[in-house]
Amino acid sequence: MTTPSLIAADWGTTNFRLFLYDEAGKVIARHAANIGLKNLGVLTFEQALLSVLKDEFAGLEHLPFLLSGMVGSRQGWVEAPYAACPADLQTLVDGLVRAPSEKLDVSIVPGLFAESPGTGLLNVMRGEETQIFGLLKSDPTDGFMVLPGTHSKWALIRDGQVQSFSTHMTGEMFQVLKAHSILGVLMENSTDNEEAFLKGIERGMYNRAFLSVIFSVRTEALFNNIAPAHLSAYLSGILIGSEIIAELERHGPSPVRLVGDGALVDLYEKALAFAGFKDVTRFDGNAASEAGLWAIHKLRTAQ
Amino acid sequence: MTTPSLIAADWGTTNFRLFLYDEAGKVIARHAANIGLKNLGVLTFEQALLSVLKDEFAGLEHLPFLLSGMVGSRQGWVEAPYAACPADLQTLVDGLVRAPSEKLDVSIVPGLFAESPGTGLLNVMRGEETQIFGLLKSDPTDGFMVLPGTHSKWALIRDGQVQSFSTHMTGEMFQVLKAHSILGVLMENSTDNEEAFLKGIERGMYNRAFLSVIFSVRTEALFNNIAPAHLSAYLSGILIGSEIIAELERHGPSPVRLVGDGALVDLYEKALAFAGFKDVTRFDGNAASEAGLWAIHKLRTAQ
Repeated sequence: MTTPSLIAADWGTTNFRLFLYDEAGKVIARHAANIGLKNLGVLTFEQALLSVLKDEFAGLEHLPFLLSGMVGSRQGWVEAPYAACPADLQTLVDGLVRAPSEKLDVSIVPGLFAESPGTGLLNVMRGEETQIFGLLKSDPTDGFMVLPGTHSKWALIRDGQVQSFSTHMTGEMFQVLKAHSILGVLMENSTDNEEAFLKGIERGMYNRAFLSVIFSVRTEALFNNIAPAHLSAYLSGILIGSEIIAELERHGPSPVRLVGDGALVDLYEKALAFAGFKDVTRFDGNAASEAGLWAIHKLRTAQ
Repeated sequence: MTTPSLIAADWGTTNFRLFLYDEAGKVIARHAANIGLKNLGVLTFEQALLSVLKDEFAGLEHLPFLLSGMVGSRQGWVEAPYAACPADLQTLVDGLVRAPSEKLDVSIVPGLFAESPGTGLLNVMRGEETQIFGLLKSDPTDGFMVLPGTHSKWALIRDGQVQSFSTHMTGEMFQVLKAHSILGVLMENSTDNEEAFLKGIERGMYNRAFLSVIFSVRTEALFNNIAPAHLSAYLSGILIGSEIIAELERHGPSPVRLVGDGALVDLYEKALAFAGFKDVTRFDGNAASEAGLWAIHKLRTAQ
């Protein structure tokens, strides 16, 4: 029989995923709830968390709580300021912030910030740092850690540290152009299409005039070169190609650990192969969060 | 006393601007109406045009009519297919298409299409070709003709011809990101700010990872480096800088004729100066349309 020892959660803008750990760090229960930051309504963070506990985990309110994600932003429960890169697991432990609560013992993991090497551009992440250190726990080798998504992150790992990282607004750009620009107008019943996707990857990689290349989504349709149902795959290719070439030029085809789930990670795998990355491995995003939250907890309690 | 000889119009998706010419090509009356393609409602193109004539130009229905712009697109009155570059004024005359009308003698100017040199990307324009040849009539020198806007056009002029051109979705990208992306969230009471604009130009020119650079609109705000009221100027700078560097790299700092009106052209003038273009002159966009429509009419009737 196992004894519960920690409740942790990845608490973001839309998602809330809770993990209950035993004393050995094994996850013995998982729970998702619709209390992302934008769905809280009139509830405080404490009330929202208590309601989840009451429904699903009664009697466990005495456990320590550890939260990562946007819950630590300025709009969150309490701000856990971004910690600077280079950063290791200890950096996250040092940056933990206690959330104000009368009933619960809650700590929040800080996000990270970095200047992109060579450009002076500032970058921030919240939640991904926990996934990254979760994966580094079992495999601390150097290379890229890539987390595709709304705001894709490319972290440079060296000596078990996050040296620096960049953000690419690839996922959000895709949604916004599809829903709100002229490029979405001719798109129909989108289906995956490898040919159109790879054509987009090639165009996005080898033509750096981004604002010009994307207009070809319209002209390729006007001249019947790409079917309306494949335009979305073509646009997706251009965007992912544009993201990949920027990192490839700066850092070469380093080994990549690709973190995430489902169809999006499939696309990145194809695109990275096309771009000449030879050493690409993929990891489950939820498992990475689970491992990272436990690693932070262990290091904190060992001190 | 002057005799009316031609009615011409620039008829686009949102705008309709009509010009009445005397026999010497002087514009003796102008009229704007709210009958852009998206505002036509149940009216046919012929009905819409007749209603404008009835209200403002009664008795002139016997004149020849010449129309340019989206009225010649697949969604227009009749399609005037895109003519291929290189193109000169004769190309436009050869591509004129008669619109079906029982009461009026209407011809529509074709748009142009081109493959961007070196990239294979297709480009199209409708309306701008008429402005370009209007300006070339008085000044046929080589260089760039640049028409900033929703979809900015950079036409390469050589020997009085449009050799080729590119499109940059700069204006639309600005609107879409401001209204529908996370980058608009922190923007407040936007005001012009030269410092933020030039910082954006520099970042957009010297950092080619477009999807990454734009995320700095958010981080520069998070770290209080740029005031919320200046974020919009900063984003605008990134986009225009990104447009300009692409053309500068391909074709060098050729002389630029900048065509348009108002604040947007002011911004491009500043940005081009920053980018090292020495020979930049500006021209009024409406005057260019007027001159172009007359030039097409003259060449047609001389034959």
